[in-house]
Amino acid sequence: MDCLLIAASETDANIYYASGFLAPDPFIYLQLGEKSYLLMSDLEIDRARLQSRVGAVLSYTEYEERAKRSGLEHPRCIDVVHVLLEEQGVRELKVPGNFPLVHADALRKRGYTLSVKEEPFFNRRAIKTDAEVAAIRKTQIAIEEGMDEMVTMLRASEIKNGFLVLDGEILTSERLRRRLHLLLMEKGCVANHTIIACGTDACDPHQQGTGPVRAHEAIIFDIFPRSTESHYFADMSRTVVKGRASDGLKRLYDVVLQGQEMGIARVKNGVQARDIHEAISKLFEQHGYMTGKTAGRMQGFFHGTGHGVGLDIHEPPRIGSVDCLLQTGEVVTVEPGLYYPDIGAVRIEDMVLVQDEGCRNLTTYPKVLEIS
Amino acid sequence: MDCLLIAASETDANIYYASGFLAPDPFIYLQLGEKSYLLMSDLEIDRARLQSRVGAVLSYTEYEERAKRSGLEHPRCIDVVHVLLEEQGVRELKVPGNFPLVHADALRKRGYTLSVKEEPFFNRRAIKTDAEVAAIRKTQIAIEEGMDEMVTMLRASEIKNGFLVLDGEILTSERLRRRLHLLLMEKGCVANHTIIACGTDACDPHQQGTGPVRAHEAIIFDIFPRSTESHYFADMSRTVVKGRASDGLKRLYDVVLQGQEMGIARVKNGVQARDIHEAISKLFEQHGYMTGKTAGRMQGFFHGTGHGVGLDIHEPPRIGSVDCLLQTGEVVTVEPGLYYPDIGAVRIEDMVLVQDEGCRNLTTYPKVLEIS
Repeated sequence: MDCLLIAASETDANIYYASGFLAPDPFIYLQLGEKSYLLMSDLEIDRARLQSRVGAVLSYTEYEERAKRSGLEHPRCIDVVHVLLEEQGVRELKVPGNFPLVHADALRKRGYTLSVKEEPFFNRRAIKTDAEVAAIRKTQIAIEEGMDEMVTMLRASEIKNGFLVLDGEILTSERLRRRLHLLLMEKGCVANHTIIACGTDACDPHQQGTGPVRAHEAIIFDIFPRSTESHYFADMSRTVVKGRASDGLKRLYDVVLQGQEMGIARVKNGVQARDIHEAISKLFEQHGYMTGKTAGRMQGFFHGTGHGVGLDIHEPPRIGSVDCLLQTGEVVTVEPGLYYPDIGAVRIEDMVLVQDEGCRNLTTYPKVLEIS
Repeated sequence: MDCLLIAASETDANIYYASGFLAPDPFIYLQLGEKSYLLMSDLEIDRARLQSRVGAVLSYTEYEERAKRSGLEHPRCIDVVHVLLEEQGVRELKVPGNFPLVHADALRKRGYTLSVKEEPFFNRRAIKTDAEVAAIRKTQIAIEEGMDEMVTMLRASEIKNGFLVLDGEILTSERLRRRLHLLLMEKGCVANHTIIACGTDACDPHQQGTGPVRAHEAIIFDIFPRSTESHYFADMSRTVVKGRASDGLKRLYDVVLQGQEMGIARVKNGVQARDIHEAISKLFEQHGYMTGKTAGRMQGFFHGTGHGVGLDIHEPPRIGSVDCLLQTGEVVTVEPGLYYPDIGAVRIEDMVLVQDEGCRNLTTYPKVLEIS
């Protein structure tokens, strides 16, 4: 396809995927059939020639000079892109949904036809190569080593007045997170906003968690770092209790685990993701775990079952209440959860590779509720 | 102003600035005069009510239900936003330059008038409050402690065959970076792509640097982490030599330092940033340091003099070859550099707060070339 991307690859996975080049400021990627071009500033051009995987790295300054020679005193970004597009004789381009409006308006004003292609913008980005799967798995190994350390710290702590004490100090979400993030960084991964939440904090699925983690309560760990080397994410959640879980929490855990295992068992090429999500929702309801607003807050299972993982932490496909056929080579999470402030919160998340028959679980960390 | 933002606040500083709410997936922020609204999914709504600083947090699901009642089976994002806009009786909105084209097209199709407001989208975002300056300064302190550790490691290393040996192992960019990133994380800051580059690597200003750092060569440190607590960045560069710098490199360093000090001396409210950049460029040329393509690569001073720092690492204003009047309260870097593969690379960067008369340097780290 003929397409144009203008974005900073530090924050936009499509342009990073297409160019293989990491930069903090927006740059220009043009693809015309099999040919691909970068238009780079003087600051980035030599590095782009070294590091990118495009057909040709062109000089923004040179095209800017040509725009100036055509009579523009201060050519703007699209004035410069226009010189390149004219040279290539292209008038119609596909752009991603997040293409910046300011550039789209400027291009259309010059007579270009832009059509938005929704995610996945590059179809092949959803289908992971062996090298991509290996990169994701490498990040996953760091997560599992980190989770091991978390469990070790919980195990080593003593319960005092309902709190956990380790090396004379009360164990908090912040302290666990700090240890985890340092360990992940030692393994070449950067983690942001890792969720280590207990009690009502954990009942809000994206709440990071603050303050002491408490004994006999569900603690959710949701760990999703990115490799600084490969730039691929991985994602895992586990729910644990230091001490003894209530019978109600144990039942909740068992049902979430049953739902999660059922979800994983159903993942394979060609399956309708929505069916997986609905089957899990139905299972939860059959066990009496209803979803909806209770006492002014959402309770039950009120998020999707899963999402693709790759250069973005959340990317296509989705396993939720929308139509979506899973395809061989996609890496998706399966992470149902149930959240009730009066019982506790449970989320269990593995990452699996969709295959022709079934899937391969990329997560090898055990699922055990109670830590003594 | 009446404006609409749809973005993920993890990666879009404007919506984070406006909402005070951090989320990994795109959400909807609407501002109508003094009133502000978030439209949040079930997953994020309770956390948004707790953490955001908007007037009202509304339920996406509720507005989606209303869109369904109006006859849409599967309402899309803009169908839902449309219900809210109709309710509020608004037809014209300002959006930022990076507003997603897919949403802009859908809104215009429904008859809305969108006009792009370029950066700074929120004028007040460029003008830092005392609390914002304190946050930036706090990140800066972590940088300086990190740089101290880098210098300590260089000082403690021994020169052997042109390489640096510390604790029996050759000192590399990777090893220094790893130590620095761990130390920054201990201080609550996440650093990505820190530049620790020597030799020809350093002559490419955004090259991270790899392999052994060598004695008697310029090593550029460019450190720009973000606080995980405040989310504010800071930015500093220093150039050092372990061992003895050549006379040519010393002269290069002195001229860059002279240019940088001249730049800082000229920063104040109302000054034309372009004049600062051009004065430094002229100084360099007067000393015989020319800029342009030599032997197939850019050499000399081929990047801007500085940029704003805040919730983005690069934000308005710019000090470069474009018109821009500096204003009291802006935090900007002053970071000229000169790059010649046959002499070496030097960049020196401080971060200063623009004031009515002059500026306050937020960087207190010394500038010394040689480390013995």
